[in-house]
Amino acid sequence: MDPIFELFLAMPTRDSRKLLRALHHQLRAAIVNGRLQPGLRLPATRKLATLAGVSRNTAVAAYELLQSQGYIHIRPGAGAFVTEQDSQPIRRSPTISDSNADSRLVSFWRNPPSLPAPFQPPYRFDFRIGLSDQSFFPFQVWQRLLVRSQRSLSKTSTFYSDPQGQPALRKMIASHVSITRAVAVQEHDIVVTAGTQQALDLLARILVTAGHTTVAFEDPGYEPARIAFAAAGANVVTVPVDKNGIIVDNIPPETHIIYVTPSHQFPLGHMMSVARRIALLNFAQSHDAVIIEDDYDSEFRYKSSPHDALQSIDHNGSVFYLGTFSKSLFPSLRIGFVLTPPWARDALVAAKRFSDWHSPILEQETLAAFIAESHLARHIRKMRKVYGERRTALTRAIKRHCSDLLAPIPVDCGLHLTALVKGNLMAATIAAEAEEIGIGLYSLNRYPIAGNGQNGFAFGLGMIRAEQIDVAINHLAEVMRHA
Amino acid sequence: MDPIFELFLAMPTRDSRKLLRALHHQLRAAIVNGRLQPGLRLPATRKLATLAGVSRNTAVAAYELLQSQGYIHIRPGAGAFVTEQDSQPIRRSPTISDSNADSRLVSFWRNPPSLPAPFQPPYRFDFRIGLSDQSFFPFQVWQRLLVRSQRSLSKTSTFYSDPQGQPALRKMIASHVSITRAVAVQEHDIVVTAGTQQALDLLARILVTAGHTTVAFEDPGYEPARIAFAAAGANVVTVPVDKNGIIVDNIPPETHIIYVTPSHQFPLGHMMSVARRIALLNFAQSHDAVIIEDDYDSEFRYKSSPHDALQSIDHNGSVFYLGTFSKSLFPSLRIGFVLTPPWARDALVAAKRFSDWHSPILEQETLAAFIAESHLARHIRKMRKVYGERRTALTRAIKRHCSDLLAPIPVDCGLHLTALVKGNLMAATIAAEAEEIGIGLYSLNRYPIAGNGQNGFAFGLGMIRAEQIDVAINHLAEVMRHA
Repeated sequence: MDPIFELFLAMPTRDSRKLLRALHHQLRAAIVNGRLQPGLRLPATRKLATLAGVSRNTAVAAYELLQSQGYIHIRPGAGAFVTEQDSQPIRRSPTISDSNADSRLVSFWRNPPSLPAPFQPPYRFDFRIGLSDQSFFPFQVWQRLLVRSQRSLSKTSTFYSDPQGQPALRKMIASHVSITRAVAVQEHDIVVTAGTQQALDLLARILVTAGHTTVAFEDPGYEPARIAFAAAGANVVTVPVDKNGIIVDNIPPETHIIYVTPSHQFPLGHMMSVARRIALLNFAQSHDAVIIEDDYDSEFRYKSSPHDALQSIDHNGSVFYLGTFSKSLFPSLRIGFVLTPPWARDALVAAKRFSDWHSPILEQETLAAFIAESHLARHIRKMRKVYGERRTALTRAIKRHCSDLLAPIPVDCGLHLTALVKGNLMAATIAAEAEEIGIGLYSLNRYPIAGNGQNGFAFGLGMIRAEQIDVAINHLAEVMRHA
Repeated sequence: MDPIFELFLAMPTRDSRKLLRALHHQLRAAIVNGRLQPGLRLPATRKLATLAGVSRNTAVAAYELLQSQGYIHIRPGAGAFVTEQDSQPIRRSPTISDSNADSRLVSFWRNPPSLPAPFQPPYRFDFRIGLSDQSFFPFQVWQRLLVRSQRSLSKTSTFYSDPQGQPALRKMIASHVSITRAVAVQEHDIVVTAGTQQALDLLARILVTAGHTTVAFEDPGYEPARIAFAAAGANVVTVPVDKNGIIVDNIPPETHIIYVTPSHQFPLGHMMSVARRIALLNFAQSHDAVIIEDDYDSEFRYKSSPHDALQSIDHNGSVFYLGTFSKSLFPSLRIGFVLTPPWARDALVAAKRFSDWHSPILEQETLAAFIAESHLARHIRKMRKVYGERRTALTRAIKRHCSDLLAPIPVDCGLHLTALVKGNLMAATIAAEAEEIGIGLYSLNRYPIAGNGQNGFAFGLGMIRAEQIDVAINHLAEVMRHA
């Protein structure tokens, strides 16, 4: 009999703030007084929501709250567990056994890692991150090029295609990157991938020897990247970041791979300082390590001159530069790329060949034409302006309505802005309450790699209109004041 | 100084048959008399061709000939080596070190596995395999559906998509497979993949523990599948096939995974007998092993009733059924699927999520509509007739022109027909000579997994017109008689 059942004797009336607090208090009390034993697996948030008669997000928030206070651990793919004295660091790769798991599966995949469920739109005020605003995208142009590419493809036998990517696209990416990021590169240095996730996966294959390779990872950081390395059997160690980026002095000497987001640290938003970049490159050179530079959204920069990419100031062939078109075009396209140092090219192309042969040709050819006819450059210029206005509106609104509650982290580029909570309010709680009144907003608790992450919000700029922002932040401020 | 240089003192006039023989004899002589030492790495075929002033395919044929006679080993990605007394089985995963290899790479990928270079079209007579005839494909219909799907996609924010595949497509695949293959399946059992190669790769991830898992593999068989398992660190053991399919009694008891092509053994073409299917399923059940059933081209069947798929007669949840649309539509689409037993579904979907998140939406939605509007069923019916006529023409032509030289293997379905060479002629030699006179034809030497493979040809039916076949086979017969 599930011990959780007994807990819900009296839940208050339908008011999300009260519900969350009641749920949180009852769970915490049950843990403290031992009714919920250490190590006990708590029900899934969906089930908890049903049991408690609250929304899914309220249940999620209750768990995030308890986790942030150290009462429970959330282990990806395994569930939430009441904390034990000798507890493991939170959210490491799932290795605990599961009665349901089938012994024919590799242990890593018996409890598949998972990510927090995305909030469900629509929202009156949508601050979800990772989305770009497609309402500005020239779909008519895209469609015309799509049809043209399809026509020419239908005339040729497309049996064999280059796993490295269509030459036309690699050529265009090379010129695009050399312009947007001042990265010197030629088409033969580029490997086209199914977005950044496949780029990370392929690099993990060719660089990670299971049980041997150590990967240094930003904390907080981008969980899907961590999972790609963990799945390959890497020993992922987390390294804290400060306002200058990953703290190089904290990178273990035995590190083989360092994953960083220097242009726009995910999720905090800092840009890595030049000094830190040089220190990082020196570390890589002196330790024979490689750096994976994930440049996921830096085309959208608000300062005229961005810092040089690590790749462009590296003289040691130690940097893999990752780019994606998910932000500048749309995520469903699934096209990204790796700029690879020459010593790894053949291996990377072979890994691509034997993982999925090659990416679909139609999108590659269409994108090549889209870049060739300057539509991409034009669209990015347009969106820089759009997202820039939103960023300005957001920083102004925070200043106006809740500068005492939120401290925005200055950001030079990218599609989201992060603000840390001042004082004792729990961002996870606020986010859940904000969601109940139509504000879609992610708390940083969603992005811990180890420990509790940070107490703040990541405001996405992709879905909210500039003119909505002031009102939205005003509402958010009210929620925070009444919490 | 490359010892190979000294060899080419006198090469005869430009006649491909004489060139091949001269090249083969000189290399063999040099190996026999010790001028080319055991273990010596021979130059790449491209270089050999230049050195000897012969075509690339002649050089390839010379090496295949020497390999088939045991003078040399060809190791994928490593090159050709003069055979040593204590030589390893040919074409195992490349592990030999290479001075160029970078120590930062995982050992498996330092000498990336490679495949024989595809012959270069155009040919007067094109018997290359793995291609489907796109001239019959209704591209206008496809384009209309493509545009429609693009339109509706442009109206929706496509941030989050299901790694398992678009529900609409999985639903359509379920009904399609239940009709074409009498495989009982529902949409939640289907995982959409980037073609068969990714299906194999994802299965290798969730089923193969490096250094521990044994995979039984058909010999001769489909090399790209072998590489997917080898790359995951599996111990791949080859098991011979006979006319009834893989010889179950030869499968090692410690086997965890068995990869088979029961509908149309690749490349020989046999259909696995019912008795053998039952024996295989019993082996899997009694040894707690899983079966991967690669049903790569069985939609194109010439008999009214195909054997049941292993998946449909399995009661133990031990079969993964792999399907692809590369043959029924076109390969550049990169869409395939896995019917997974329930115990592996979550793991497989998670592996997909963290390898490339999901496959591109546009193709998925377009294909879903293409199936829903019966275009796929119609196209397959049409192509069955087309390929059936070609198969008939081919068997007739062989009977008429070279029944004394070639023994076709009866085939019930699929896009190619295999014929074994009677007598001592080397198929590799003939294929190279045939290519010089405009016949694109692969010898079975291209598909050995261990040992020498078989001595014969795989005639692709995808690119040759029925009315060309008699002439082509007549020419081929002449080549064989003059060899």
